Amino acid sequence: MTLKPPATSHDVARLAGVSQPTVSRALRDDPRLSHDTRRRVHDAAQELRYVPSQRGRSLATRSTRQVGIVVSDLGNSFYLEVLDELHDVLREVGMRMLVLTPESHDAVSIEQLVDGSLDGAILTTTRLGSALPEDLAARGFPFVLLNREVDSSTGDVCVIDNQRGAGLVAGELLTLGHREIAAIFGPADTSTGRDREAGFRSVLAGASVPLPEHRWRRCAFDFQAGHRAAIELIDGARSAPTAIFCANDIIALGAFNALRGRGIAIPAEMTLIGFDDVRMAAWEAFELTTVRQDIPRMVRTATELLLTRLAGGSGASLAPRRIVLEPTLVKRGTHGPPRPG
Amino acid sequence: MTLKPPATSHDVARLAGVSQPTVSRALRDDPRLSHDTRRRVHDAAQELRYVPSQRGRSLATRSTRQVGIVVSDLGNSFYLEVLDELHDVLREVGMRMLVLTPESHDAVSIEQLVDGSLDGAILTTTRLGSALPEDLAARGFPFVLLNREVDSSTGDVCVIDNQRGAGLVAGELLTLGHREIAAIFGPADTSTGRDREAGFRSVLAGASVPLPEHRWRRCAFDFQAGHRAAIELIDGARSAPTAIFCANDIIALGAFNALRGRGIAIPAEMTLIGFDDVRMAAWEAFELTTVRQDIPRMVRTATELLLTRLAGGSGASLAPRRIVLEPTLVKRGTHGPPRPG
Repeated sequence: MTLKPPATSHDVARLAGVSQPTVSRALRDDPRLSHDTRRRVHDAAQELRYVPSQRGRSLATRSTRQVGIVVSDLGNSFYLEVLDELHDVLREVGMRMLVLTPESHDAVSIEQLVDGSLDGAILTTTRLGSALPEDLAARGFPFVLLNREVDSSTGDVCVIDNQRGAGLVAGELLTLGHREIAAIFGPADTSTGRDREAGFRSVLAGASVPLPEHRWRRCAFDFQAGHRAAIELIDGARSAPTAIFCANDIIALGAFNALRGRGIAIPAEMTLIGFDDVRMAAWEAFELTTVRQDIPRMVRTATELLLTRLAGGSGASLAPRRIVLEPTLVKRGTHGPPRPG
Repeated sequence: MTLKPPATSHDVARLAGVSQPTVSRALRDDPRLSHDTRRRVHDAAQELRYVPSQRGRSLATRSTRQVGIVVSDLGNSFYLEVLDELHDVLREVGMRMLVLTPESHDAVSIEQLVDGSLDGAILTTTRLGSALPEDLAARGFPFVLLNREVDSSTGDVCVIDNQRGAGLVAGELLTLGHREIAAIFGPADTSTGRDREAGFRSVLAGASVPLPEHRWRRCAFDFQAGHRAAIELIDGARSAPTAIFCANDIIALGAFNALRGRGIAIPAEMTLIGFDDVRMAAWEAFELTTVRQDIPRMVRTATELLLTRLAGGSGASLAPRRIVLEPTLVKRGTHGPPRPG
């Protein structure tokens, strides 16, 4: 095969019979150029299959049209569904998505974000104590927190009411008649872990139903951790619980599979409820009862927050905004009354 | 909060007492500078929290340290596992991953790839007739095809032996005694769809076992399509088959859930076998018998092919390489002898 070097703006200028600076103005459809000139340049560019350099363009406009999404947990379908949605939303506004995935527990370095290749970022798996949001805010770098919050109240946030969501689960378990209740909470250094735990405990406490030490675990938001924790709650306890609340659906799916492996029938012998309503929760093999987060709405809201900040230049002028979406309990097939003791 | 404008290389030069061009040379650890000078510049940069501009750097070095991965199907866990692995592999060599996700059936435009923001690309969900690989090759843009091949033989490729993998499944079904065999194949315009279908048909034909029209479907590689196709194979046939081969695990999981919804016991009433061995296949709820692709090995191999091409400049000199990995049949819990007619 013979290789042809890619066409340059000089080639386009020559073919269209215009000067080189006119080429980029014509391709930007600068209205000060005549319709005819713009047409000739577009035709020449098409004929030569000329592609303007993104690097040159970004130095000129100071915009890269790239948004970074920081996500440390691609094994959690929740974030996969977020990526899927975000990609579409950014595309609608002509932007690209750069996925930054620090290894677990390893913070993404600020240098990766502010090196000039991104217009802004969406942070999704940030931990409570992370200094990243504050550092980004101090530099005037536009960002939004999606699903997670941090201790410092800098930056825009879009979350669900996690306390209320977990409270809905606790209320449902009590209504069903459960008293021997267990829970697999998420990491205490995440806002989702902390808030779902607080909401769940608060409703149980309000009904004077205890949650003793041997009836709860805290673990990572992943399948294997949920699988292990469920086994511990069953094997370690003097008596098995009649219901387990899991702080997210991936933990719940881990627990579901662990119970399946032990031959424990759901919900006849054990009620199991998750949080997030990932697509898999609705599969016939699971029919998982769970708390629904409206992922498309959360992604659109977070993106709008970011775009508003991008439109406002450095973003220094806008006070941080916090948008809280409402959770709903989706009742499927994994909950029921406690088995007769 | 008071905002401080980000430090520039001028600020660093002033603090370190050197000229501005010396700053970037010192931060690149140019050995022609004295150890002391380099040390002073590094210290000043750290004190001012100076971050060199990636855009400036990339114009100077002509390298962006960004690799694009083109994937149209984030709903398929196979590609999620590929992303997860690729991210880690690229990180080890100091590169970043840009995810380009065209909407289904919509080709990623060549402009998105060759606009100067990427050093190279890994194409994963390319269709057989796609002109993209040939266009990229004609421009000397480095790329590798992972898991998929195209009709034109341009470019490096890393695939599994799909024909052989599907042949292993057909052989296993015959050995178990199945004769009423059904199949849900993938799209005919993908190499994985085409090759798995060919391998499966060829082994059945070799044993003179028919695969009549009402016993097979072709569908998209997704959960919903597999779910629908399984229902059709059961409801539409005069007699139900005793085994279904699915061209990938997501189709198989769709079929699994459809059968579950109909109350059909697996494997007592129906054998079900997939292809890929995604992590979910091993879950207790599924225990899916399937053909294993070694995803980490495939990703590493593809990345090595790409890096070799990047190291070789335009990549024009190297002939296209094609690496084929061996499949293995993973026997779990969804296969068995046919139910007595």
